[in-house]
Amino acid sequence: MLKNWIREEIPSQEELKERLTKAKSRLYELQMKIKEHKLPVLVLFEGWGAAGKGSMIGKVIKNIDPRFFKVATMSSPTEDELRRPFLYRYMKQIPEAGKFTLLDAGWMEETTKDCLEGKLGSEDYAKRIDSIKRFERQLTDNGYLLLKFFMHIEQEEQYRRLEGLLSAKDTQWRVNAFDKWQNEHYKKCRKVFDRYLSDTNLSTAPWYIIDALDKKWAELQVLETMISGIETAMQNSSHSVPLLQNVFPLVKMPKLKDIELENKVIEEEEYKTELKHLQKKLRELHNRIYRKRVPVIITYEGWDAAGKGGNIKRITEALDPRGFEVHPIASPEPHEKARHYLWRFWTRLPKDGHVAIFDRTWYGRVMVERLEGFCSENDWRRAYNEMNEFEKELSDWGAVIIKFWVQIDKDTQLARFTERQNNPEKRWKITDEDWRNREKWDAYEVAVNEMLQKTSTTYAPWHILESVDKKYARIKALKIVIKELEKAVK
Amino acid sequence: MLKNWIREEIPSQEELKERLTKAKSRLYELQMKIKEHKLPVLVLFEGWGAAGKGSMIGKVIKNIDPRFFKVATMSSPTEDELRRPFLYRYMKQIPEAGKFTLLDAGWMEETTKDCLEGKLGSEDYAKRIDSIKRFERQLTDNGYLLLKFFMHIEQEEQYRRLEGLLSAKDTQWRVNAFDKWQNEHYKKCRKVFDRYLSDTNLSTAPWYIIDALDKKWAELQVLETMISGIETAMQNSSHSVPLLQNVFPLVKMPKLKDIELENKVIEEEEYKTELKHLQKKLRELHNRIYRKRVPVIITYEGWDAAGKGGNIKRITEALDPRGFEVHPIASPEPHEKARHYLWRFWTRLPKDGHVAIFDRTWYGRVMVERLEGFCSENDWRRAYNEMNEFEKELSDWGAVIIKFWVQIDKDTQLARFTERQNNPEKRWKITDEDWRNREKWDAYEVAVNEMLQKTSTTYAPWHILESVDKKYARIKALKIVIKELEKAVK
Repeated sequence: MLKNWIREEIPSQEELKERLTKAKSRLYELQMKIKEHKLPVLVLFEGWGAAGKGSMIGKVIKNIDPRFFKVATMSSPTEDELRRPFLYRYMKQIPEAGKFTLLDAGWMEETTKDCLEGKLGSEDYAKRIDSIKRFERQLTDNGYLLLKFFMHIEQEEQYRRLEGLLSAKDTQWRVNAFDKWQNEHYKKCRKVFDRYLSDTNLSTAPWYIIDALDKKWAELQVLETMISGIETAMQNSSHSVPLLQNVFPLVKMPKLKDIELENKVIEEEEYKTELKHLQKKLRELHNRIYRKRVPVIITYEGWDAAGKGGNIKRITEALDPRGFEVHPIASPEPHEKARHYLWRFWTRLPKDGHVAIFDRTWYGRVMVERLEGFCSENDWRRAYNEMNEFEKELSDWGAVIIKFWVQIDKDTQLARFTERQNNPEKRWKITDEDWRNREKWDAYEVAVNEMLQKTSTTYAPWHILESVDKKYARIKALKIVIKELEKAVK
Repeated sequence: MLKNWIREEIPSQEELKERLTKAKSRLYELQMKIKEHKLPVLVLFEGWGAAGKGSMIGKVIKNIDPRFFKVATMSSPTEDELRRPFLYRYMKQIPEAGKFTLLDAGWMEETTKDCLEGKLGSEDYAKRIDSIKRFERQLTDNGYLLLKFFMHIEQEEQYRRLEGLLSAKDTQWRVNAFDKWQNEHYKKCRKVFDRYLSDTNLSTAPWYIIDALDKKWAELQVLETMISGIETAMQNSSHSVPLLQNVFPLVKMPKLKDIELENKVIEEEEYKTELKHLQKKLRELHNRIYRKRVPVIITYEGWDAAGKGGNIKRITEALDPRGFEVHPIASPEPHEKARHYLWRFWTRLPKDGHVAIFDRTWYGRVMVERLEGFCSENDWRRAYNEMNEFEKELSDWGAVIIKFWVQIDKDTQLARFTERQNNPEKRWKITDEDWRNREKWDAYEVAVNEMLQKTSTTYAPWHILESVDKKYARIKALKIVIKELEKAVK
């Protein structure tokens, strides 16, 4: 990319001025259209130190109403961010539909810096590039416009600018150690940047190299490219993308109808003893997990009235309250709905050493959203792979992922619904929606079977909890959690 | 890709049978929908020798009416094909809208074979990959569904199959030298294949690795993937794609209004002498071009009545009729319109050593098609880059590309139109459409200026022929052609 990059001739001052005026007013107009079209726009500014990323963002946002954009300066990750997956802090920043986010450096700077500092070997680099390509593809597949700018200046110009900044007291702070290091190792950096640009130059999110020598010219290039990108994106209402072949190792799962529920019971006495014993063990493990900084993600899906709540309770009873969080997942809030559907899960990820329990999960996409038509067919068909990719990120980060499907039969559900209905204290637990969902049992069963089959990976397999006897299911869940955590702290 | 490829468990015989029946009838239904949707489908079968590419194609087409598909077996390029650009013989095969083409091996096999035979160094390989990615992107950007299958078998299975084929007289012919070589150098091949698969795994045209051990299972995978791909593609009517930054070196071009036409004249005597002299020179050069096997492409665009025909005539008079062809380009025929808009130009490329003269060209896309709305805005905006890419392929192949813009002013055109109208012998040369186009002079001027600015690359620059004095323009054209050919045979 940089190697073959062509410096375009700078237009005359007169032309520059004219085109800039036009571009500014066009961008101003477009912000309202973006809102109407519900287009989320993520603009990434990468480039050389002192190339003018920050001041460029300052110029761009002059043309946008403050209600429609956010700027995020992504300096080195904080202590807290270092305890999350690499992409966490970027995913957090993605705009909602109809709005802009402008990022002052992002995953390119972090990755190339890690490379230059020798923190990323070639294998880890390849893995990182895979993650980044998946992340960017997931954004564009889900309707995001991702505009990637690389602000380019030559070594001498960078030197001149850094000297200028360093010579005045009130600008010294703008030069950091990496900027200076870059200039001293310009060629080496150029090579690493160039490789990164080529490796991540996706046709759905291509790189635009901005000649940042002349500031007005740089501004014009950025504005005109933004305008062209936005106009193109707005020509599309929705778009179906090819489904990718699964590349993750899968574990064979049974069909729901073949799951034996009959003899999965436990005596009251045995239950009490076991429960106490297992919870004690889990309590100890939680400590070791905490000290070893292993992130743990436990997820629950299952039929209504299958006993998820009580099951979760038996787990959390054993955990130190400072080290876990339960996330009940209902329909998304408007600000969640306006973003990539995995955003509300990414932002709820635990710190390493902590446990996050999700009561219902991202798998809503391939169950309720599929069946109720809340997303397109292409959306939910694509989602199996997106979830495997998401969980792969978590697993590569070091997370233990334990996914439960809490299984009961239709009769058991009816009995529990009826009891809830007839018991004034439990009546709040049953809604008309539960009855409506029950009518769609067979359709759900098809969807659940497909989900179990396509998303039970070796690194994040599904576990079935037979829950006609809730106590049996609780003991089984505890045992599985203990087994998985023991593996992780070994 | 191959490294991380996961063998999926083969379904039971019963399930296989059931899903195959379903898939076959679905594909049968889909062929009519493809026709309705005017979707062109290119299916590429690559893979190991003896993996069953040919017989798989045989099975697939059993579900498609013979009117709707073509099969092309791409063995090694013929003598004639070797005298064209690498992609020529593949571009030739692309289907028309609403139909299938199935390719028995293609640009992957050719490229990896060249690699394995040491014919492609790492730099040439990188260039080839760029070409291929551009080719595939141009297809999908222009609405093609490109399905890429890699039929995979392990070394032992391949050995077993090759032995089987070789042991019987009537199947011996099916094993070629490369198949045997592959098996002997399986690991090396696997590495080269794997790298190729990763390098060309585009999200708009991803690879599908087919487990070809069991034939029924392989068939099911192919059919189901085809169905899913077709169904996804049919969900899109049209789609606008991001415009890519120019990566080709450009030559600065003047605006039409700044082109001096006044003093570009030549005396009759001088013209005659010059013409004779230059044509003689060109005749000699044509011989050398032919012997040196340099392909030459000369293109003409310009205002109606600018004098293109007469100009071309003065060139061809000097050429050996066995070594050139003039292609007058009118509106596309239905079978041309049904394909990628560059198809009719790709298929008219000369053999090396030959001269092709295009009277009007692919630039119609950004002039008449743009102005008359024959393509979408995204189509013509994207086309500048597509043409630069196309001409880059030609240039890398070794072609001399000479592009003429024949320029006159509006008054001159009016004078010539009027003369044609009043002269019974010339009246056939003028149509109502010419008059209508004339009314759009200003809009055309904007389009032409943009075209000249964006597609005048160092390897295929535009040349302006000032043609108020047609003789002047002819002499200038001859001089330019001579100069460019002299550079090429030096």
